[in-house]
Amino acid sequence: MRKRYFDHVATNPLDVRVFDAMMPYFTEDFGNPLSIYDLGAKAKEAIEKARAHVASLINSKSSEIIFTSSGAEANNFALRGIALARQNEGKHVIVSKMEHHSILNSARFLEKMGFVVTFLPVDKYGIVAPDTVRKSITKETTLISIIHASSEVGTIEPIKEIGQIAKEKGIIFHTDAVAAAGNIPVDVKELGVDLLSMAAHQFYGPKGAGALYVREGLRIVPLIYGGIQENGRRAGTENVPAIVGMGRAAELAKDEMADRIEQAKKLRDKLIKGVSGIENIYLTGHPVPISRDSQRENRLPAHASFTVEFIEGEAMLLLLAAKGIYAASGSACSSKALKASPVLLSMGVSSNLAQGSIVFTLGAGSTEEDIDYLLSEFPQVIKRLREMSPYAKGWGMKGEGGECTVQK
Amino acid sequence: MRKRYFDHVATNPLDVRVFDAMMPYFTEDFGNPLSIYDLGAKAKEAIEKARAHVASLINSKSSEIIFTSSGAEANNFALRGIALARQNEGKHVIVSKMEHHSILNSARFLEKMGFVVTFLPVDKYGIVAPDTVRKSITKETTLISIIHASSEVGTIEPIKEIGQIAKEKGIIFHTDAVAAAGNIPVDVKELGVDLLSMAAHQFYGPKGAGALYVREGLRIVPLIYGGIQENGRRAGTENVPAIVGMGRAAELAKDEMADRIEQAKKLRDKLIKGVSGIENIYLTGHPVPISRDSQRENRLPAHASFTVEFIEGEAMLLLLAAKGIYAASGSACSSKALKASPVLLSMGVSSNLAQGSIVFTLGAGSTEEDIDYLLSEFPQVIKRLREMSPYAKGWGMKGEGGECTVQK
Repeated sequence: MRKRYFDHVATNPLDVRVFDAMMPYFTEDFGNPLSIYDLGAKAKEAIEKARAHVASLINSKSSEIIFTSSGAEANNFALRGIALARQNEGKHVIVSKMEHHSILNSARFLEKMGFVVTFLPVDKYGIVAPDTVRKSITKETTLISIIHASSEVGTIEPIKEIGQIAKEKGIIFHTDAVAAAGNIPVDVKELGVDLLSMAAHQFYGPKGAGALYVREGLRIVPLIYGGIQENGRRAGTENVPAIVGMGRAAELAKDEMADRIEQAKKLRDKLIKGVSGIENIYLTGHPVPISRDSQRENRLPAHASFTVEFIEGEAMLLLLAAKGIYAASGSACSSKALKASPVLLSMGVSSNLAQGSIVFTLGAGSTEEDIDYLLSEFPQVIKRLREMSPYAKGWGMKGEGGECTVQK
Repeated sequence: MRKRYFDHVATNPLDVRVFDAMMPYFTEDFGNPLSIYDLGAKAKEAIEKARAHVASLINSKSSEIIFTSSGAEANNFALRGIALARQNEGKHVIVSKMEHHSILNSARFLEKMGFVVTFLPVDKYGIVAPDTVRKSITKETTLISIIHASSEVGTIEPIKEIGQIAKEKGIIFHTDAVAAAGNIPVDVKELGVDLLSMAAHQFYGPKGAGALYVREGLRIVPLIYGGIQENGRRAGTENVPAIVGMGRAAELAKDEMADRIEQAKKLRDKLIKGVSGIENIYLTGHPVPISRDSQRENRLPAHASFTVEFIEGEAMLLLLAAKGIYAASGSACSSKALKASPVLLSMGVSSNLAQGSIVFTLGAGSTEEDIDYLLSEFPQVIKRLREMSPYAKGWGMKGEGGECTVQK
């Protein structure tokens, strides 16, 4: 059975062109970039070339890019590194309820260290209103961190507007662009951000490679101390093949972005239209405008997410997988945690309905035929599950109260 | 010209057998281990298989292994994670002056957070006397961290003896085994350590993969917060290919360790004997016993390090590289920092002599012919440099006082 991958937000296969670029750095040009002989210099050059491509993708200088091992590391580094560097100026940090766990849990760590954190509410589409940011700023505020685009509901936040407020107030502004960078145009100057996180595997680069953009001149406390790699801001022997891969993936993403977006939007719109016709299914995140007059959309081009009433997310994922369709769920079990998605709850979705979350994300390999197949199979899956039980008894839930089984 | 790599302590080429094991996880079995469908499950299984191999290498349980992106990350995680987890019991931490920068600089970070850190002295061989550990323990001490083996001078520390003291006093004990694990037998139970850091590229695994052993039941504060990967102790999408590679490299290291050590020792002894004959050259680190009656050696089997009088380390490295010989220096410029090696200084080496540090490390591909070549070329390099100037004027030093040029 053909596998149809609708989970590009979870991770992506490595682009073979990226893999080709990485290849020499595993067994041949394997030197440590700190070594002064040619083998080291070659590795160093490769890293700097990659840095230039990553910088170019987001319109920054090369010197403003710090490589990390993941988007999560970049987020931890940004939030804690800036909060600590500026703690003498104030101990108040603003984030939103749309943030990824790497931001939310870093924020909770800061709370334990005596910081005060505001978790901003969002509207029903998951949008952080710039005005709520403005109103939450105090004399103690040193950092605002708002996600660029949500991987769970696809909503794109008004980063530029929030950036203007931050600048006006002299507050450092970070955005977690892990789901955005490489997938939609991201320009740090236009957005007015001081820091921005990204992850290579979100745009066909390798796992194990991320980056944090840190605006020139900004002081940040390291997360990983040690040697003088990354100008002393992030220690550890550089993962040269992964960094090279991130650079190549950034180069390709920039070159091909317009085409990728056009293709994704076409398929996504067909998917959303088709799925929205099923009874008791609701789109989550920002709706796609019917008219394309507006250049501005508040939804990732490859993202379609829904809540399905009377059904549990994991049950859908398992039945879909049995039909060769791979998708994700923002709900409890799919993320192997035990709670309903905090993001959906913050958008006002009831906890029962939040359990029935399903997320389809498209990629470079997605075809119209994939969408047709999904649209023919998905309604049957829903029908079958609803026939079995309004609460999908036996599908990933046990006993009463919908307690999920943590899979290990 | 044939390249002869004597810098296995800096990094290693990936073993082709390891690369083969990693290969499927880049473009085919690329799933996110958190995904519940088969592609995710396959990645998860691969990670767990790797975890078992890494655990087996150091005689721990699989559940005691947390994957990280590097040895430096593992060291930061261990030191800060335990110090923070136990700060209500005390705020005193003991490390040695032999530690890697990832430990030393993490310790300095703890000092800024109000911890007291003792930096233990060492003897002329770089050995931390267990008795100095015992004497430095106070009621406030919660953590001791001593390096297993120094990558700079090859000295192996009396970890087992220090472990006994730590256990007796109820203090948590971490060892940075980045240079040791995979290269000499390391058994966490025999050593009596509670935490142990390792890095895959030190034993022919990939860059971007490290691990921290954390004894069962020990609470540790995460360094990277986010999702529930690694049981909530280390977030970020798992770098599946790198983790798989670390597992395969651990498996091979275990299987082949005895042979690798025997081969390395033979070549190392020849190298040390040959180089020691050159005038005004001194072995650094622990001397190799003439008699092999004793199973116990205090030096890494593949490690030979020296200080060369009247010469600057970087100058040697550059001239040797011109002859196809790749080596390292513990001195200032080779590490692209600006100071003489703190490790050598702590062993009582004068700062002038410490500038002339050179480190040769052998690997699986090293041959007797490589040693012969080194022994024929190295004396000429030294002769030439000494003829030029007693302080190697013009070779990586500018002006008076031996200020090094930071290479970027």
